[in-house]
Amino acid sequence: MNNFHFYSPTHFVFGEKTEQEAGSWIKRLGGRRVLIHYGSGSVVRSGLLDRIKASLDAETISYVLLGGAQPNPRAGLIYEGIDLCRKESVDFVLAVGGGSTIDSAKAIALGVPYDGDFWDFYREDIPVEQSLPVGVVLTIAAAGSEGSANTVVTHEKGMLKRAAGGDCLRPRFSILNPELTFTLPAYQTACGATDIMVHLMERYFTNTEEVEMSSRLCEGLLLTMIKEVPRVLENPTHYGARANIMWTGAVAHTNLCGVGREQDWASHNMEHELSGLYDCAHGAGLAVIVPAWMSYVYKHDINQFARFAVNVWGCTLDESNPEATALEGIRKTKAFFSAIGMPTSFAEIGAKEEDIPFLVKMSLTETGGREALGRFVPLYAKDIEAVYRLAL
Amino acid sequence: MNNFHFYSPTHFVFGEKTEQEAGSWIKRLGGRRVLIHYGSGSVVRSGLLDRIKASLDAETISYVLLGGAQPNPRAGLIYEGIDLCRKESVDFVLAVGGGSTIDSAKAIALGVPYDGDFWDFYREDIPVEQSLPVGVVLTIAAAGSEGSANTVVTHEKGMLKRAAGGDCLRPRFSILNPELTFTLPAYQTACGATDIMVHLMERYFTNTEEVEMSSRLCEGLLLTMIKEVPRVLENPTHYGARANIMWTGAVAHTNLCGVGREQDWASHNMEHELSGLYDCAHGAGLAVIVPAWMSYVYKHDINQFARFAVNVWGCTLDESNPEATALEGIRKTKAFFSAIGMPTSFAEIGAKEEDIPFLVKMSLTETGGREALGRFVPLYAKDIEAVYRLAL
Repeated sequence: MNNFHFYSPTHFVFGEKTEQEAGSWIKRLGGRRVLIHYGSGSVVRSGLLDRIKASLDAETISYVLLGGAQPNPRAGLIYEGIDLCRKESVDFVLAVGGGSTIDSAKAIALGVPYDGDFWDFYREDIPVEQSLPVGVVLTIAAAGSEGSANTVVTHEKGMLKRAAGGDCLRPRFSILNPELTFTLPAYQTACGATDIMVHLMERYFTNTEEVEMSSRLCEGLLLTMIKEVPRVLENPTHYGARANIMWTGAVAHTNLCGVGREQDWASHNMEHELSGLYDCAHGAGLAVIVPAWMSYVYKHDINQFARFAVNVWGCTLDESNPEATALEGIRKTKAFFSAIGMPTSFAEIGAKEEDIPFLVKMSLTETGGREALGRFVPLYAKDIEAVYRLAL
Repeated sequence: MNNFHFYSPTHFVFGEKTEQEAGSWIKRLGGRRVLIHYGSGSVVRSGLLDRIKASLDAETISYVLLGGAQPNPRAGLIYEGIDLCRKESVDFVLAVGGGSTIDSAKAIALGVPYDGDFWDFYREDIPVEQSLPVGVVLTIAAAGSEGSANTVVTHEKGMLKRAAGGDCLRPRFSILNPELTFTLPAYQTACGATDIMVHLMERYFTNTEEVEMSSRLCEGLLLTMIKEVPRVLENPTHYGARANIMWTGAVAHTNLCGVGREQDWASHNMEHELSGLYDCAHGAGLAVIVPAWMSYVYKHDINQFARFAVNVWGCTLDESNPEATALEGIRKTKAFFSAIGMPTSFAEIGAKEEDIPFLVKMSLTETGGREALGRFVPLYAKDIEAVYRLAL
């Protein structure tokens, strides 16, 4: 186990009707004037925005509104949000939505007290140490931004998608009401579930020795998803199943399951280029990439993949041929994604073989100068190309 | 799943040599004058106290010392600590030791800013809202106080053992260096491990439905202990095994594994009377009580105990007779405790059958006026007596 620092100071407020507590949490945490940042019209149409306004009104907390956050949140709206916060003397940012809205809210919160261009934190490796406090009312179980220190933003200039992170960006509170996810369509539910599962897999496959505890946590959370996702697709208003998925999604990305171990993240890097170029959902792109990645790297540690097959997918270990078990686990991973309605090939997301050289080149721009993606197995250009080809 | 609030803001600083960071963490968190509170001479003899002093000196943080915290920490030393902190204008309390030292330090931190008697918080149900900040350098993986909001203290007057708790008592940082546990004798190691495992079991057995996620977390952490404890008893300086146990112990008691579900805690209540009367180690008392408790209550939910047997102990489910599987899991629990050197009967801890009526009476004084212990199955006086008898 590697040395580590684990810190997750978010107040997670979980359960039915908890969005009604937004105002009291902001008050308790010292907010007086709030930017309510949200994405699509569903937050308005469902009445959620009105309920949150009422909750703030009840505490005599004033607010300004900024809607329009979109998937792969854009810098343009963030500049607008920063200006609005400064003009209106906002001291607390409340994100109402999913990962993109939260990431956009974090970027705004980061930019307000900073004299320069907020994009500096994404473009360069500047320490993130100061921001407005951020709160969250979550509407989609997926990205885990409600419990993480990170934010990913796309700049219109060059369509660069970049990340920044620092503990001040961890939400002060995150309100998680599973009921708010009841109306999520099956496809988006499955995309979110895939993202959650891959957050665990990126941490699970590691070269670090003596990490039994976090391996067991990853396995336990994956088993939870394998049980609960089909139940939710069968019955979208199943509170218990929605609740288990929502809480798993938050815990999966606080990094509890990743501390003390090298993590991979090559699949995320490679997927970013797919969703960037073809505008597919992030979870859908992951479902295409991950089984291909597994097929390419499993020989690097057959025992780890065999363990994954046994402990996560319930395969029986073939002691005379653990490779067969490892391969069975990869097949089951792909079959699960497919069964919950995810694409598992390039064609299904409209991706094209001829774009592969471009995808390879772009994926390597995300490494901050390193020549390879991933840490479980470093993938150089030829390896990345091979993984994309396996995903055809 | 029940509605819940989860909050664990502790900075966990984990790994080799991390005690050297004590001074920089206190400085970062605003401490200027520290009470270093510790227990036995081993903290002195091992040189740990000197290393911590040097770490504070390096940051020019001044300190006063208070040793002598003992198992089942006593109010007398806490009054002394409160006086010392006030006299010396201490603004940060650093506990160096195990659960008892941490609980004692929390009580001191709670008492300093309070005008009345600190015992008020333990005797009555007064909200715990203000204390000095507490930091921890942990030397024993066991009680989980390094990640919890709670403190348990024994008052010499009537030898009452009582708990208090509040988020302000969660340690601001907890330094966890597995090397500091290398010299722990096998018996104490096993007592600590038992306590950790029972913290998980008290949460695992629940009547709350739809709690798959936290059930999986409990199972995963129990599996970790089942793997690692025998390795550490075999090789006390096995860093990886000590590390997995130490981190499991902290996470097991942040309440991540217990939120959203009713928890039991009857075994802890019943054990407190054993360690109170016979001065046995808490973990040893738990090893005696828990298998007896399981044998008494398993019929209340045979499927839950069968699941425990399968997922934690690797038993094969007997579908035609799940009760047989449940019983096999209880046998394996007891056998594990026994194999790691724990007592599993009254006789082994010097407990006496004729004391049972007194133990029953005393255990019910811990309920705050309720007539029963436990929530998975409420145990009334006759039930408590039956469990104690099963433990004979």
